Amino acid sequence: MSLLTVGSVAFDAIETPFGKTDKIIGGAGTYIALASSYFTEDQKIVSVVGEDFPQTTLDDLKNRNVDIEGIQIKKGEKTFFWSGKYHNDMNSRDTLVTELNVLENFDPIIPESYQGVDYLILGNLAPSVQRQVIERLETRPKLIAMDTMNFWMDIAWDDLMKTVKMVDVLIINDEEARQMSKEYSLVRAARKIMDMGPRYLIIKKGEHGALLFDQKMNTFFAPALPLEEVFDPTGAGDTFAGGFVGFLAKTDDISFENMKRAVITGSAMASFCVEKFGTERLENLSQEEIYNRIMEFVDLAQFDIKRELI
Amino acid sequence: MSLLTVGSVAFDAIETPFGKTDKIIGGAGTYIALASSYFTEDQKIVSVVGEDFPQTTLDDLKNRNVDIEGIQIKKGEKTFFWSGKYHNDMNSRDTLVTELNVLENFDPIIPESYQGVDYLILGNLAPSVQRQVIERLETRPKLIAMDTMNFWMDIAWDDLMKTVKMVDVLIINDEEARQMSKEYSLVRAARKIMDMGPRYLIIKKGEHGALLFDQKMNTFFAPALPLEEVFDPTGAGDTFAGGFVGFLAKTDDISFENMKRAVITGSAMASFCVEKFGTERLENLSQEEIYNRIMEFVDLAQFDIKRELI
Repeated sequence: MSLLTVGSVAFDAIETPFGKTDKIIGGAGTYIALASSYFTEDQKIVSVVGEDFPQTTLDDLKNRNVDIEGIQIKKGEKTFFWSGKYHNDMNSRDTLVTELNVLENFDPIIPESYQGVDYLILGNLAPSVQRQVIERLETRPKLIAMDTMNFWMDIAWDDLMKTVKMVDVLIINDEEARQMSKEYSLVRAARKIMDMGPRYLIIKKGEHGALLFDQKMNTFFAPALPLEEVFDPTGAGDTFAGGFVGFLAKTDDISFENMKRAVITGSAMASFCVEKFGTERLENLSQEEIYNRIMEFVDLAQFDIKRELI
Repeated sequence: MSLLTVGSVAFDAIETPFGKTDKIIGGAGTYIALASSYFTEDQKIVSVVGEDFPQTTLDDLKNRNVDIEGIQIKKGEKTFFWSGKYHNDMNSRDTLVTELNVLENFDPIIPESYQGVDYLILGNLAPSVQRQVIERLETRPKLIAMDTMNFWMDIAWDDLMKTVKMVDVLIINDEEARQMSKEYSLVRAARKIMDMGPRYLIIKKGEHGALLFDQKMNTFFAPALPLEEVFDPTGAGDTFAGGFVGFLAKTDDISFENMKRAVITGSAMASFCVEKFGTERLENLSQEEIYNRIMEFVDLAQFDIKRELI
């Protein structure tokens, strides 16, 4: 099935306890598209970059079967740039620089050839922009997933509420779920957030895994792979989202059982992402590596227990 | 199989955002014995209380098939007392009062009838006391599990090292694992800690579940049940340990596969513990409730993913 990814294609500069990068390729749209490209061959992307963005990176996406017609290149403007520094525990970071540049007035134009797309993932962007994308699609996709962050909860709450009402799956982290719901318990948070609209909620807990809920409060807990070292967490959440939605687009099955598999797939892709700086590890994975990584999750989480043992 | 529990039988006074108790029954030994009593009918306990400890509580343990011959009652002395206050997130607490009382000079006397016990669990106590118990057993149990805490890492490191060398399973929390290993990554921490002696390591992560490792670094991740409300976390770790070792004693199988089941069983018992103050919820569980709770963990963690889907 076809998948439309909407999200930033950008530059990042990252500092972790393991090292420091110059400007490298980043952006939610990039991570999502790379991760999902391992699952669906019919992917389209809507984004915007400046004149300073390397054509080779756009060509790389094209070579991974991502239709880049929807990436606007703004003459005379600069690409979105984010720079951040991670602390020793890798769970918190300081933003050093945010230059919105082309994202400041991003008008998400949907190429005519993108109409009729089956799956839609909205990476973190202003909720009003995310909503515009939905409104500009002539037929509603089978499934719409979106990411957001606390920044929009702070400055664009009403817009955010309008947008979450229109989506099927909301993907946020635990801190964001607590802020959005004003509840500490993630179970209570999940119930409140699904009352705001989405039929499914994924709460990412970083090294502690991820929770998937549906409106009947069926719950799935996906572990995170315990890692020797997290080299660079940048993009892990977007990579998770890309693996998740890419798997759904590939299998075209949005049952809760299949969403569990999609969450595991997203977790597996995220576990690759953090092994190297930026998108590096996501550029040349083999299907065999992905399969073996998913099997590590099976080994990690599976047990069987029979009634007579209890 | 028979199980020997060694641990404090004590008084607690607890304050949480949901309420406050007077002196109620607590102690690691109490929680372990209660939790494991649902699995093994041949349990013995070694502990010490003061003259102020209620006989009815000892009778309750006896009624749950716990042999209390090894509980010394010290005339003219007072029972160990701990008082603590939990913060809003329930993940941190302040100790308000610690009165060691009878624990100060605890000499763990093993009744003759306890010799030959199959399984041994050492609740959190001075590592020298834990070691004395092992040394006083004429035949080594099939499996020795122990709990400890950062307090002993701070003040009795050498003693702790001697004792961990003698046990099969060490059960600690993530913060303790990091302190003990001086590693932030739990994978690295696990490897270093198992180099100190134990063949298996369980790292409890509270609301984030628990990890089980063996020396080949086989790893199992047990989720915690996402709860609407944690009423009182006191004793949850001990209850986990009791469910874990009780299940092993019942099934008499110390393979990694069966340890996974034991970890799930411990997690299920701990999920009951936090629903009420103190030991209350552990006093009258039915086998049906326990079975159903374990099945909730199955639903929470299980997924199936086939090669052809990836």
